[in-house]
Amino acid sequence: IASKLPDVGTTIFTTMSQMALDYRATNLGQGFPDFNTHPDLISLVSKAMQEGYNQYPAMAGYPALRQAISDKVLSLYGRHYDPATEVTVTSGATEALMSSFQAFVHPGDEVILIEPFYDSYIPAITLAGGKVVSVPLTPPSSDCDKYTIDWNKVEAAISPKTRLIALNFPHNPTGIILSEQDLDAIERITTGTDIILLSDEVYEHIVFNGKKHLSLASRKSLAERSLVISSFGKTYHTTGWKIGYVCAPEALTVELRKVHQFAVFTVSSPMQVALAQFMQQPEHHENLSAFYQDKHDLLLAGLQQTRFRPLPSEGSFFLLADYSRISDMPEIEFSLWLTQEHGVTVIPVSAFYRDPSAPDSNHQLVRFCFAKQDHTLNAALEKLAKV
Amino acid sequence: IASKLPDVGTTIFTTMSQMALDYRATNLGQGFPDFNTHPDLISLVSKAMQEGYNQYPAMAGYPALRQAISDKVLSLYGRHYDPATEVTVTSGATEALMSSFQAFVHPGDEVILIEPFYDSYIPAITLAGGKVVSVPLTPPSSDCDKYTIDWNKVEAAISPKTRLIALNFPHNPTGIILSEQDLDAIERITTGTDIILLSDEVYEHIVFNGKKHLSLASRKSLAERSLVISSFGKTYHTTGWKIGYVCAPEALTVELRKVHQFAVFTVSSPMQVALAQFMQQPEHHENLSAFYQDKHDLLLAGLQQTRFRPLPSEGSFFLLADYSRISDMPEIEFSLWLTQEHGVTVIPVSAFYRDPSAPDSNHQLVRFCFAKQDHTLNAALEKLAKV
Ligand SMILES: CSCCC(=O)C(=O)O
Ligand SMILES: CSCCC(=O)C(=O)O
Repeated sequence: IASKLPDVGTTIFTTMSQMALDYRATNLGQGFPDFNTHPDLISLVSKAMQEGYNQYPAMAGYPALRQAISDKVLSLYGRHYDPATEVTVTSGATEALMSSFQAFVHPGDEVILIEPFYDSYIPAITLAGGKVVSVPLTPPSSDCDKYTIDWNKVEAAISPKTRLIALNFPHNPTGIILSEQDLDAIERITTGTDIILLSDEVYEHIVFNGKKHLSLASRKSLAERSLVISSFGKTYHTTGWKIGYVCAPEALTVELRKVHQFAVFTVSSPMQVALAQFMQQPEHHENLSAFYQDKHDLLLAGLQQTRFRPLPSEGSFFLLADYSRISDMPEIEFSLWLTQEHGVTVIPVSAFYRDPSAPDSNHQLVRFCFAKQDHTLNAALEKLAKV
Repeated sequence: IASKLPDVGTTIFTTMSQMALDYRATNLGQGFPDFNTHPDLISLVSKAMQEGYNQYPAMAGYPALRQAISDKVLSLYGRHYDPATEVTVTSGATEALMSSFQAFVHPGDEVILIEPFYDSYIPAITLAGGKVVSVPLTPPSSDCDKYTIDWNKVEAAISPKTRLIALNFPHNPTGIILSEQDLDAIERITTGTDIILLSDEVYEHIVFNGKKHLSLASRKSLAERSLVISSFGKTYHTTGWKIGYVCAPEALTVELRKVHQFAVFTVSSPMQVALAQFMQQPEHHENLSAFYQDKHDLLLAGLQQTRFRPLPSEGSFFLLADYSRISDMPEIEFSLWLTQEHGVTVIPVSAFYRDPSAPDSNHQLVRFCFAKQDHTLNAALEKLAKV
């Protein structure tokens, strides 16, 4: 059998979670909470099932859920998406990404990715027949403890074949967020082109230090060319429910739905009904940044007591830490060693690069997930202090 | 925006269900039950959520569910699929189909479809860059009141570029099933080739008149080249949960999972946990044929009292009926008229053809779904008696 995806193996997240189980390690690798979702949300799903919401919902999503998404986006980002024609409920952000790439990338088209990037992007683009053009983030330097985006490099990567630029802020794995200046730059380099922006904003409600997430939906000139993707998994502690959504102008939504319709048709009916009701209480997403700030701070402060050099994160479930004072192993080796010898599982940042084994992809950095109970974080820190 | 799927509109199922709502018609169109799933299954999902099964399950599916699927398939069809490497849980049969076509059809490959066929097949093949070669079923003749498959025509359609043959029995929309002779023919025409068989068997547990579903898993020489797809939606009255699965030899499963992993990653965790437990009671699928036989018989007998000429069905949710004694309208027009003027919604069979408006695709047949409460079927029959 000739493989369509010869380079694809098991994702690093599955591999590392399995390692964590095998070695009974504390798992700060794969991005999922180790605590339960809100009991009210569970009750709402149970009620929806009892009321008979177990058959096909509408292909684009349960109407009340699309309305609730539209209301939230309007109130947070000031743009109105018509629930009938501009909001589509998907099987998580993963399906949103796959269906978007399938819908818009024609064979031979180029897609610009900012590296490091999430591991589903390349296979999805490859299946669509597209070509990946990657632009590296500028790594932290001595003057600056965070990654930065060099928009001139992004601009230079644009060619007549560029169909789409994929963005993901708050960024997995580095935790950086977009500033107004970044939006200005995106505006400048895309104005006058027909480039589509795909914006994966699943960590939109997890932003620290009083900063604010800047959605591409918030600026008219960008929203008009954007697929804005988010997910309930990270927001409501339900990564296993696989419910996300895409907000996009009608002309883009029409094409997206053509693919979505035949990729999964629709997503879990009782969960959609429950989410529509749960979204009526905005405190659940409004309080999320504060909730995760505490966890971020706990992990950051704890790592500062170790030989790791943590980089603070502006948003997401994650922060990176440099381990060059501990070892000169490449990232993947170091991550395996850390699980085996010290019982703490992390993700090598090189896994978010096109070629994880290339020297350019190895900066002696690993990713820690702090979407964990405090006692889990403390258990990990105790072990990490001994490294 | 250049469309990847210029020919795709809204599916006929969505269109007709919307018409049914607009005209308050009795909906015997889209294939879903108008009654609820089993209360025990609902309780099991509630319990799983309370126990915290709300985060990412394994990419290929919750292990106990894969085991239960493997056990069921072994006991019914005599083939053992290794749950670790040969069973994959998908977001319904729809995702199973999309991921299968994406995984195995390379640009320029040919896929043989037996026409009429389900509407997701062509777009999924088109996105993969494949070419559809369709072979018509032989329509009912005066000697025979059922559709038959002319395997010589299928054989004649095979070329060096044929990558895959897609089968779907019990068949939607005609309700015909496979016989041992059909399996013989499939064996004969595929032996010595590297053609993959995709077998959509979502109606495997709904077969009438004491007949038995013959799965492609049941014959070794076929199973070895087959992706056997099924779904819990039709079996447990949960079409809105979107949980299906694929059983296939390891070499095929490896490639399928590469796509599945990036198409949706995984499917609803609490529902998978619940299904694994519910499957321990085989009576739920064992009693299904008898349950639907009664509904089939009720609708068939009722339609025989009208000017429709119903064709009996051997399996599935559906039976077809000829309306040539009532009207000479094409099928789509007749279906709209029936909703508007008589308040009963059906599906034109032409929607399952490549070109629904071609004269060849119109046989003055419409599809009735009998997965409905008896009082719904009786209400429809009362109205149909007046047509
Ligand atoms: C789908 S598993 C990956 C979860 C995640 O978003 C991450 O760990 O980066
Ligand atoms: C996904 S809607 C179609 C349901 C169905 O299987 C049918 O009606 O044929």
